[in-house]
Amino acid sequence: MISVTLLGAGNVATHLFKTFNNSNQIAVKQWFNRSIDAIEPFKNDVAITDDLNTLQDADIYIIAVSDDAIADISSQLPFENKLVVHTSGSVNVHDLNAKNRRGVFYPLQTFSKSAEMDFVNVPICIETLVKTDYPILKALAVAVGSPVRKVNSEQRRTLHLAAVFVNNFTNQLYRVAHEITESEEAEFDFLKPLILETAKKVQNMSPYLAQTGPAKRNDKKTIKKHLKLLKNDQHKDIYNLLTQSIKDTHGR
Amino acid sequence: MISVTLLGAGNVATHLFKTFNNSNQIAVKQWFNRSIDAIEPFKNDVAITDDLNTLQDADIYIIAVSDDAIADISSQLPFENKLVVHTSGSVNVHDLNAKNRRGVFYPLQTFSKSAEMDFVNVPICIETLVKTDYPILKALAVAVGSPVRKVNSEQRRTLHLAAVFVNNFTNQLYRVAHEITESEEAEFDFLKPLILETAKKVQNMSPYLAQTGPAKRNDKKTIKKHLKLLKNDQHKDIYNLLTQSIKDTHGR
Repeated sequence: MISVTLLGAGNVATHLFKTFNNSNQIAVKQWFNRSIDAIEPFKNDVAITDDLNTLQDADIYIIAVSDDAIADISSQLPFENKLVVHTSGSVNVHDLNAKNRRGVFYPLQTFSKSAEMDFVNVPICIETLVKTDYPILKALAVAVGSPVRKVNSEQRRTLHLAAVFVNNFTNQLYRVAHEITESEEAEFDFLKPLILETAKKVQNMSPYLAQTGPAKRNDKKTIKKHLKLLKNDQHKDIYNLLTQSIKDTHGR
Repeated sequence: MISVTLLGAGNVATHLFKTFNNSNQIAVKQWFNRSIDAIEPFKNDVAITDDLNTLQDADIYIIAVSDDAIADISSQLPFENKLVVHTSGSVNVHDLNAKNRRGVFYPLQTFSKSAEMDFVNVPICIETLVKTDYPILKALAVAVGSPVRKVNSEQRRTLHLAAVFVNNFTNQLYRVAHEITESEEAEFDFLKPLILETAKKVQNMSPYLAQTGPAKRNDKKTIKKHLKLLKNDQHKDIYNLLTQSIKDTHGR
């Protein structure tokens, strides 16, 4: 049985709590949040607290708060030499206070408030400063069914950066498509199967091989038509830049 | 029973043939291609031909060839006043020769050579110049399980343009992420669940509401870190432009 104490009450913390709580190999010892209100709904499932001085012994303390608050909360912990990890993709492991054994438990996934998440689909990137701390963090990830990798700081930063491209930026392209279709009374909904298929395609094929369309074919006529249709200058800029990027990738 | 003759042997034509051939409400009368070799493997399933003059009577003739070849092949058809449609998102319906009744049967999906496609996931956009030609095209789409919409030329052009954003451009962002991860010995594979979840998220939520990340939060520190990590100037340009686009969308 792995005992865990959670700190923070955002999306990541809440999803971690739910999946830990469902595992019979994990005991969530306590759940801390600065404001007790946010975790009040879970008080029948776990001991909740808003006082760091009440924290009891646990195998792992997981700090799942906003990036800016990690260093601060880690320095306020009233104990030493315990295993303390944060869950951020971009915060340095050394930002955690050095009085404890430090590590990172970074779930590489986007979490929604509303939807449940099966952790089989949440890869966990683990980093530890003390080598012997790795096995228990790996066991924690495995207990919830997650794929797990040991990554160093550079790899984690790189994955976090790449995640911005495939998640935030991709989602913004969906948003632009939404704006384009709405403005011409076409249905964004009609694009949804294509959105899903595009993501499915690269599960088994490289994005290089999966590419199609006017930019890859260097179909100047269609590209010109599209640019003429676009009314918003920023949409035009995005069209031009990504068309050029595809051309460069495919040697056009 | 709807009788169909297919013209062309590319990805779209091949997927259409397979799904039509599986339906007991559709008879594929003939399959034409300029080069017979491409359709030779199907000669036991359907009458194949490379001679337009051998085309027999059918309810619908579907021209699924490259955009540039549509006008030409439609003018070479040796008959008049039949229902002739193309399958392109961007070609004008009037590019089809006026001697026949013209329409468009545009499948809004990306097709792979290798993978089978369930047409439940292939929305069909239908346009007809003669109103009475709509029902049989709709029946054809419904027979293979496709969602179907009547769209006008403007809406179809808009959907095709928006499809470039959610398919080609999104795929290029996956490619950029592949380049970024490879260059730092991180694993692109580890991003695949996130890619899928990002696409799933907007099936039930608007891209506006689904957005997260440093640009939306206007998290200048993380944005600065990311720009410093990016070595490729074009990657930097994409990062800056899409970050600005997200900021503008969310009023940052």
